Amino acid sequence: MTAASTALRTDHYELTMLASALRDGTAHRHCAFEAFTRRLPDGRRYGVVGGVERVLEAIENFRFDEAELHHLAEAGVVGEDTLEWLAGYRFHGDVDGYPEGELYFPGSPLLTVRGTFAEAVLLETVVLSILNHDSAIASAAARMVSAANGRRMIEMGSRRTHEESAVASARVAYLAGFTATSNLEAGRRYGIPTAGTAAHAFTLLHDTERAAFESQVASLGPNTTLLVDTYDITRGVELAIEVAGPQLGAIRIDSGDVGVLARRAREQLDSLGAFGTKIVVSGDLDEHAIAALRAEPVDGYGVGTSLVTGSGAPTSGMVYKLVEVDGRPVAKRSTHKTSRGGRKIAVRTHKPTGTAVEEVVHPGDAAPELGPDDRLTQIPLMRGGKRVDDLPTLEDNRLRLKKALVSLPWEGLKLSHGEPAIPTVFAEQ
Amino acid sequence: MTAASTALRTDHYELTMLASALRDGTAHRHCAFEAFTRRLPDGRRYGVVGGVERVLEAIENFRFDEAELHHLAEAGVVGEDTLEWLAGYRFHGDVDGYPEGELYFPGSPLLTVRGTFAEAVLLETVVLSILNHDSAIASAAARMVSAANGRRMIEMGSRRTHEESAVASARVAYLAGFTATSNLEAGRRYGIPTAGTAAHAFTLLHDTERAAFESQVASLGPNTTLLVDTYDITRGVELAIEVAGPQLGAIRIDSGDVGVLARRAREQLDSLGAFGTKIVVSGDLDEHAIAALRAEPVDGYGVGTSLVTGSGAPTSGMVYKLVEVDGRPVAKRSTHKTSRGGRKIAVRTHKPTGTAVEEVVHPGDAAPELGPDDRLTQIPLMRGGKRVDDLPTLEDNRLRLKKALVSLPWEGLKLSHGEPAIPTVFAEQ
Repeated sequence: MTAASTALRTDHYELTMLASALRDGTAHRHCAFEAFTRRLPDGRRYGVVGGVERVLEAIENFRFDEAELHHLAEAGVVGEDTLEWLAGYRFHGDVDGYPEGELYFPGSPLLTVRGTFAEAVLLETVVLSILNHDSAIASAAARMVSAANGRRMIEMGSRRTHEESAVASARVAYLAGFTATSNLEAGRRYGIPTAGTAAHAFTLLHDTERAAFESQVASLGPNTTLLVDTYDITRGVELAIEVAGPQLGAIRIDSGDVGVLARRAREQLDSLGAFGTKIVVSGDLDEHAIAALRAEPVDGYGVGTSLVTGSGAPTSGMVYKLVEVDGRPVAKRSTHKTSRGGRKIAVRTHKPTGTAVEEVVHPGDAAPELGPDDRLTQIPLMRGGKRVDDLPTLEDNRLRLKKALVSLPWEGLKLSHGEPAIPTVFAEQ
Repeated sequence: MTAASTALRTDHYELTMLASALRDGTAHRHCAFEAFTRRLPDGRRYGVVGGVERVLEAIENFRFDEAELHHLAEAGVVGEDTLEWLAGYRFHGDVDGYPEGELYFPGSPLLTVRGTFAEAVLLETVVLSILNHDSAIASAAARMVSAANGRRMIEMGSRRTHEESAVASARVAYLAGFTATSNLEAGRRYGIPTAGTAAHAFTLLHDTERAAFESQVASLGPNTTLLVDTYDITRGVELAIEVAGPQLGAIRIDSGDVGVLARRAREQLDSLGAFGTKIVVSGDLDEHAIAALRAEPVDGYGVGTSLVTGSGAPTSGMVYKLVEVDGRPVAKRSTHKTSRGGRKIAVRTHKPTGTAVEEVVHPGDAAPELGPDDRLTQIPLMRGGKRVDDLPTLEDNRLRLKKALVSLPWEGLKLSHGEPAIPTVFAEQ
């Protein structure tokens, strides 16, 4: 099956720029575009790159088939000559960038796209859509995982965001260390473990709570998770153990002061001999609520709304800027939004202990001399429009993030507002 | 072409509930589920319903084909019997709800889905994903349009959100009164006008700003919009008129203190005889920034980030609750999240002048007696799993919202934080 074309996930102006540039010949100038962000969301100490795999897929599926060309002609977006050029469009350039799971900071050169102006300018919108969304969710997810301190995390935010954002969010939540997702499509598309048992509706459907629990245990076995807060929680917990026995897998509490309720439930479970029955809490949890529950007997968290909305930062503010034309650095220079022209490459420097020190951004694309504890942050992603071999997998990148977070100075992991965990330094030519 | 199945845009637990309920026979009980929100986002005075058309489409395309069944079997989500039942799944129930463009308030019964438990429970996630996302964007868009007070609004936020949320956002921005979108896919899929001319990259690509302007005018004609803030704005405006003549369509300013810059640009344009050249501003505008520019000579706004992120409220907090089982009202009743059981219907009451007074929520589904200035807010959407005839179009709903906003008490249109514009009143049985 041919994947759907991504070519109309594009802003109108990319095509009008193309039309003008084809007409005057500048369309064929060799260019470099760079994706980066000028700042992290308010008070955040690091960002986590998400979506790179999806970006590469979108670039490969960026083509103008009959249907796309027909619409552009009908709507009069561009003329005959441009349509003809678009019919043969395929991206043949090179892409380098930060892999998923890598940390980023203000000015980090996250993605560098090189090719003719024509082929690279068209990718702006779809590249940014994916990076801005997926990195926002990955960044929030990493803070939550870090707050959970090793406890099980289940992503269950699908219902709070667009049905396709939901799938992408589940993917990067897993990247960031979530254990499972409720989203079945993410399970199918990306092989992520999915989880789920029952909602309040299931209890309400039945004549009694006991009938609901009996039915669930008969169907899913005693290792299931019973939702105990439809009516009275104490009675719910009692009933859960009565029905499933002390080998019950877990109970879930979805409302109220979950810290207090978890403590009471733990005592009650223990008194009933259900020492191994776990307690999962859900309901409006964000990284701060998760951290606040650290001292409570909570074994797992279900997180929804705050995850899929980036916990206050639903987008990442990344831009895709033309930085080089035929080898000449270019940059906008009016008012406050000044940019640095020219292709860049970054080195993350570390102490011998492994602690990150600086993000050093170098002009040019030749790798500078690296110290023994330094490393380049970009890797090659595409050459001549094709993905390079042996790109890291989702599992590789999950591990990458885990390691990268350990490398941050300890203040960098604090949830409170602060400065970026390491400074970005711009090296001179 | 068969539309893609939406059946895995579903949380795992909907299928495990189904499996248990099929096993114990409760799956076939006749149920009503209701989508509503307990509160509006912090300080908002009204919500705007968005996404209903997409919800109906998703319900129609909710089916388990080979690919979906294969995944569910492979992943062991449910067993053989349930898979067999799913293979024949089609929604055959009834849906009533608020049409798009209708205003809503806390407790408004936005969507009522009636059918067997089995057929209705499976729709929870996809229905909520769409309503929560699209209504959040529609609600933010309506505030912006109202702040712009009749000036032209262009939606250009695609790059700041997931590539599919972008298309849905463009659609509801248009619903809310935006003039056009930059998103080409929204143009193709929904027939929404698209717009765009050039970015800073186009100027930087050329050897001089003059060469860029000349190229654009040669390609798009003098009625185009020239982006004048790549280098020096005053020089940019001068050059724009030199190149295009005083019949230039518009200039765009994308950075800096756009109010001050617009005033200066207007004077400069007038002094150059370009009295008809319009001024479009863009760059981090939200409803407050738009309102603050009311006194400035701005003819149009380009809005991106704040629109697609719901201007601080990226989701709507809607839930999908089981409210009735075989004619018996049901409701969760532990802790603070108490819900009202039973199917509901709402009447918007008005003064004879047309000003809305209350949202009166009645139990049951028989229409109460209506006063001459009252109206029911729900309309029939689906009967027996098929869309009813003559559903309102996007254009109809655009007009509906325009009229609904006029009906609000004047405080209801204030951008500042406050109470819902009209109170929700729950009538007794």
